[in-house]
Amino acid sequence: MAAPRDSRSLGIVTPQLAHFDQPLTLACGRTLDRYDLVYETYGELNADRSNAVLICHALSGHHHAAGYHSEDDRKPGWWNECIGPGKPIDTERFFVVSLNNLGGCHGSTGPTSINPDSGRPWGPDFPPLRARDWVHSQARLADRLGIDCWAAVIGGSLGGMQAMRWSLEYPDRLRHCVVIAAAMKLSAQNLAFNELARQAIISDPAFAGGNYIYQQTTPAQGLALARMVGHITYLSDEAMANKFGRELRSGSFEMGDEDNIEFQVQSYLRYQGSQFSGSFDANTYILMTRALDYFDLAREYDHDPVRAFRNARCSFFVASFSTDWRFSPARSREIVDALIAAERPVTYTEIDADEGHDAFLMPIPRYLAAFNAYMRRVGGKG
Amino acid sequence: MAAPRDSRSLGIVTPQLAHFDQPLTLACGRTLDRYDLVYETYGELNADRSNAVLICHALSGHHHAAGYHSEDDRKPGWWNECIGPGKPIDTERFFVVSLNNLGGCHGSTGPTSINPDSGRPWGPDFPPLRARDWVHSQARLADRLGIDCWAAVIGGSLGGMQAMRWSLEYPDRLRHCVVIAAAMKLSAQNLAFNELARQAIISDPAFAGGNYIYQQTTPAQGLALARMVGHITYLSDEAMANKFGRELRSGSFEMGDEDNIEFQVQSYLRYQGSQFSGSFDANTYILMTRALDYFDLAREYDHDPVRAFRNARCSFFVASFSTDWRFSPARSREIVDALIAAERPVTYTEIDADEGHDAFLMPIPRYLAAFNAYMRRVGGKG
Repeated sequence: MAAPRDSRSLGIVTPQLAHFDQPLTLACGRTLDRYDLVYETYGELNADRSNAVLICHALSGHHHAAGYHSEDDRKPGWWNECIGPGKPIDTERFFVVSLNNLGGCHGSTGPTSINPDSGRPWGPDFPPLRARDWVHSQARLADRLGIDCWAAVIGGSLGGMQAMRWSLEYPDRLRHCVVIAAAMKLSAQNLAFNELARQAIISDPAFAGGNYIYQQTTPAQGLALARMVGHITYLSDEAMANKFGRELRSGSFEMGDEDNIEFQVQSYLRYQGSQFSGSFDANTYILMTRALDYFDLAREYDHDPVRAFRNARCSFFVASFSTDWRFSPARSREIVDALIAAERPVTYTEIDADEGHDAFLMPIPRYLAAFNAYMRRVGGKG
Repeated sequence: MAAPRDSRSLGIVTPQLAHFDQPLTLACGRTLDRYDLVYETYGELNADRSNAVLICHALSGHHHAAGYHSEDDRKPGWWNECIGPGKPIDTERFFVVSLNNLGGCHGSTGPTSINPDSGRPWGPDFPPLRARDWVHSQARLADRLGIDCWAAVIGGSLGGMQAMRWSLEYPDRLRHCVVIAAAMKLSAQNLAFNELARQAIISDPAFAGGNYIYQQTTPAQGLALARMVGHITYLSDEAMANKFGRELRSGSFEMGDEDNIEFQVQSYLRYQGSQFSGSFDANTYILMTRALDYFDLAREYDHDPVRAFRNARCSFFVASFSTDWRFSPARSREIVDALIAAERPVTYTEIDADEGHDAFLMPIPRYLAAFNAYMRRVGGKG
């Protein structure tokens, strides 16, 4: 009964499905002849269709960004802190569109969907995707919804990368680009963590080269390990210290009790891993991490982000968090420096927060205040 | 033929085995009735036996710290940069003792050794160990070698933790304690990475609860993943950027070549993982990471490191590296602060180095100069 009690909640929201028959040629050269995108909308589109904002999700995200799916839903959407009445992405002013990306496992066409050519799930044969493929499919969804120009395209982490790609691929179709806790490309260390996560999945015998999907099984252990890798990199050392410290969940350091010692942080990671492995598709996880690895904003612009951003026409809001070591403030400052050099309008804020990369999902007052102030500039209805 | 060409090398060194029949009661309450320790010595013990130094190894280390085992050995011991004629741990002045710790898999009694009670390898039944157990077994080795008091006990990382434990357990048996890139206890993030590594091993079906040892198999995939975790945390973001950047080993970002894309860093991590999994015992890896997790210098001193260090009688040299994020300079400064408050003599140096935690193994000029200068204060022969 969580939904009705929260006055700033959207209440119950309902996903919708959009089917597309016009073939989509992907960056890899392959074509998807038809595909579905599942999405949710919050708020109302105004008469001149100028108040629509697009939410792009991160690695393991989906379309359910805010509100609840049912009265007894225990948890709201993943960005409920930022989307809703009176929140930074204010549903009293904006028409919010949030979709599950192509390749996902929450209702949009992806590895678990039926490949019309074979009549069975795509599995590991689903084409590799890049952030630009998502952007193109999102543009089709905008067409479908009658949105010529987004008031803003908004995303955190991998979502911020999609927002930046939007500013280059469709410069006339967004007025504002909101890039939170992102980077223009992954560092070698970022690549290394993704490789570790993928190897954990791939080396699980149950993965079977991605063909687990035909064998009524799932590489649960590998996915759980991959999620542990994710969690460790999403949280800061400080956040983990505050949350767990060296507290024990069981056992003691007294003589003879060594075999029972378990730290709280161990127990938390195992629990999170096992929860995730029951709800996420391994082929999707691999596909999403690869898209992240391959993202390189300026690759086709002679590796010059200033040249790249000269193609943008929108204004930018960039935010980073002090203890985020996955995409540190320094990575956001690179974006800002390139935008300034490209003479694009940019507002930048660096938020002191203990929560690491996950801070972008958290109700941190200074973050919400800055985000809210920028979104008032974006405008919206009324 | 590497050995003879290096004028500052020890040349060929030969491991020795010490057998102990006097039962050793462990921190967990169990007793090892007899055990072997494999060790190497470099340099000569002087007449008054005052120039001996003990090297304590880190997580995946062993007794072979310097020199070569044969004429065609391609790589020297793991700390060859710091041990040898004219090096900081100068074998022309010091008698250096380096052993493989109890529980290891390089010749000292550990999970791969025969349990005399059962007549088959200990495997997962080997007793859990703490750093103090190693210190006590090292003290027995000192007795055997006729060394009443070490000129210095020296270690990096987990080795530095053993050195600190020596200063509390046997305050009259060392004159100097050298603690490099260490910490007084693991943070929640450190614990999380160790848990990830252990889970990777444990969830490999070939691990079979540690009983792989009786089944002619080995959890190679799990060990490889654990090693990848290690490598990522030993290297800094900067070191990885310098070493690999986003360079590709194969494939290209041209249309249609996505399936062949492999970054250099991916290839490196996989190679390192597979090399390690062929040479290290999984039960030992689990045992060693647990000893690291359980280390907490001041636990028995009301969690007050100042109280703990008041028991020490030796002088301390503490060193840290700017980009080490496993045991950052802040963790070394905690040691130094506690030593100062406990009125113990301490020399501290913080070295600017891109190499992350691994820097303690590297020939970084300012590091070697500071280490060398301190070791001249320690004395030695002549």
